Amino acid sequence: MEISLLHTPDGVRDIYNEECEKKIILEKKLSETMESYGYHIMQTPMFEFFDVFGKEIGTTPSRDLFKFFDHEGNTLVLRPDITPSIARAAAKYFYEETMPIKLYYNGNSFINNDSYKGRLKEVTQIGCELINDNSVSADAEMIVLAISALKASGLKDFQISIGHANFFQGLVDAVGLDRETTEELRDLLGNKNFFRVEEVISKLSISDDAREMFSLLGGFHANVDEIRRVKVKALGSQTITDAIKRILDLDDLLKIYGVDKYVSYEFGNVSAHEYYTGVIFSAYTYGSGEPVISGGRYDRLIKHFGKDAPAIGFAIVVDTLMTALFRQNIDIPFERECELVCFDKDNEKAAILYGEKQRTDGKNIELMPMVYGKDHDSYEAYAKKNYCNKVTFMEG
Amino acid sequence: MEISLLHTPDGVRDIYNEECEKKIILEKKLSETMESYGYHIMQTPMFEFFDVFGKEIGTTPSRDLFKFFDHEGNTLVLRPDITPSIARAAAKYFYEETMPIKLYYNGNSFINNDSYKGRLKEVTQIGCELINDNSVSADAEMIVLAISALKASGLKDFQISIGHANFFQGLVDAVGLDRETTEELRDLLGNKNFFRVEEVISKLSISDDAREMFSLLGGFHANVDEIRRVKVKALGSQTITDAIKRILDLDDLLKIYGVDKYVSYEFGNVSAHEYYTGVIFSAYTYGSGEPVISGGRYDRLIKHFGKDAPAIGFAIVVDTLMTALFRQNIDIPFERECELVCFDKDNEKAAILYGEKQRTDGKNIELMPMVYGKDHDSYEAYAKKNYCNKVTFMEG
Repeated sequence: MEISLLHTPDGVRDIYNEECEKKIILEKKLSETMESYGYHIMQTPMFEFFDVFGKEIGTTPSRDLFKFFDHEGNTLVLRPDITPSIARAAAKYFYEETMPIKLYYNGNSFINNDSYKGRLKEVTQIGCELINDNSVSADAEMIVLAISALKASGLKDFQISIGHANFFQGLVDAVGLDRETTEELRDLLGNKNFFRVEEVISKLSISDDAREMFSLLGGFHANVDEIRRVKVKALGSQTITDAIKRILDLDDLLKIYGVDKYVSYEFGNVSAHEYYTGVIFSAYTYGSGEPVISGGRYDRLIKHFGKDAPAIGFAIVVDTLMTALFRQNIDIPFERECELVCFDKDNEKAAILYGEKQRTDGKNIELMPMVYGKDHDSYEAYAKKNYCNKVTFMEG
Repeated sequence: MEISLLHTPDGVRDIYNEECEKKIILEKKLSETMESYGYHIMQTPMFEFFDVFGKEIGTTPSRDLFKFFDHEGNTLVLRPDITPSIARAAAKYFYEETMPIKLYYNGNSFINNDSYKGRLKEVTQIGCELINDNSVSADAEMIVLAISALKASGLKDFQISIGHANFFQGLVDAVGLDRETTEELRDLLGNKNFFRVEEVISKLSISDDAREMFSLLGGFHANVDEIRRVKVKALGSQTITDAIKRILDLDDLLKIYGVDKYVSYEFGNVSAHEYYTGVIFSAYTYGSGEPVISGGRYDRLIKHFGKDAPAIGFAIVVDTLMTALFRQNIDIPFERECELVCFDKDNEKAAILYGEKQRTDGKNIELMPMVYGKDHDSYEAYAKKNYCNKVTFMEG
């Protein structure tokens, strides 16, 4: 037998037994959280035309897309990210809508990573999008919803790191930083190499005010006091002034929600997705190097699909969250009641009738013909392994 | 804007609003039915190595597979059918297990149909597999589980058409039919062109007994009486004798289950999947040309993956079932309670605190900042469209 007949390709995997039961329960909890804030489920296809994830959209680079063809020669792409699909669908089905549109999704996405990187190529994402609302109230609701979802999962220790897409670019523009240094800084920030960020900043020939602003890039900030202090020094840049005002207004609302302990500010947050235009955020916890949630405001994305509508959203990577919960020894409790009814051939009719009657009453009944030459202990062991809390023998 | 930015590729689609809510509820009902018979959920990757769906496996022809590559040059295939994946996973994770293995799945599968055929290229399937059990009790449980699932969906008028993979081949072998006529008959049976089947049979130079047996191919049989009658004439073929005995034994069990009114026998049932080796069955209803369920026994499939284990299973095509329910005006009831809380800026704090309190008590609360210049009627209309059964205004 060839090895390829037993194994899954690198980066994808089988999920079964308790892990799978728990994953389903976790997805249900996260979905219910979305629904408790008035979000409605939408499903989009697993693959789309290439253009939906093209360069102008600003999602995953073409090299990392799984591409293939239909019989008519169209280039199709396995979705690397579900937000562009929801944006397309919202533009199509809610073109005339001017009131808020609140959608959530629960599905898989695919990135053609290099196998040696050891990263998953298929993950399950649950995410939501709030379209047609550019208010800071919308920003706050998204961040609170992200926090509520993580709390619903059982996670206790996590931080939402909030930034703004315009802060870094605003700084770069304000001091006229050259392209080479800009890209170097962007890469270092993307890799959270704050030590090198500080080094690069220390060598720049800029004013003290600008240096203080730049130093905000190099780490996390537990409260907004220092942001409030530098606000007045916004280097005459309206972009930075606006970004900082938005963050301060957002912080006021998050304090009303009472979630400020989960929040920190990170002005060096430069997102992997180029489509973000405003507030951007990621959730981090122990036991995972990757963020469990990524999100942000994307006020220009849906326009690509023909509807000029502001929006904000985020995605929870369910697999990453599962791993983090596991490593933190946080259980996802699940209960299953089932009666295992073992019968010999003479009792098959009685067993069948009993099973059907019990199922009609809402009970779970597993029938087991005793034709395997096993003793009672084997059936008891089977029951235990298969979440049957009761075993009945009908024989003789 | 390019057309490809707004539309989905042929054969795949967006599902949203009420249709999506109902699809989720239907999937939940079908999954609960699987669980009520003691089946456990398993997830396998959306794509696998090509060999898992290769020619020897006997699933979808290579031309109709979506094929693509990872960065290491491996050929990957979007799964056209979930049974081979479960067979692979069972061989891998349950290699030593000799007791029954009961698995179910809920996921999408993909067939690269020609677009002009108008068939879906992506469908959602919920199916189950009973491995390590070659008894007729297992055959009966599968068919009863299929019937229970359809009843749980709300469907009332449907028929399970049961055949046996060995019947047609046994007949062909017994009379030594030439290959050309065999293939012609197989195609006609596959297309259910019973009129032409009768024509071809009438022209064969075979004995009267054989002709009577062949005539069983040409239609549905509401009861097993005529099958019982021809049993003695099984043309000296052990293959046919065994197949008929299995069907008769199965019928006895289905009568005990009390589901005989949903069952008919169709000896001309030749399945699309070559991997079937015993009982095969399909469920038909009004409002759909395609079967809503296909299944059968596949005692040699898992051996391809290294574990010699008999098995039987079936898959429900959720999209086909949804269409049939819709055309038969059978509703999938769904309830959602949600309170829409509309607030102006002065009341934002009160609205936020009220919402968080209510959600803690398990209520669904949708917050709506009144910043859109709309009147109360607009919010009332929005509430109705978005399943909010209560609207509260906090203003002034």
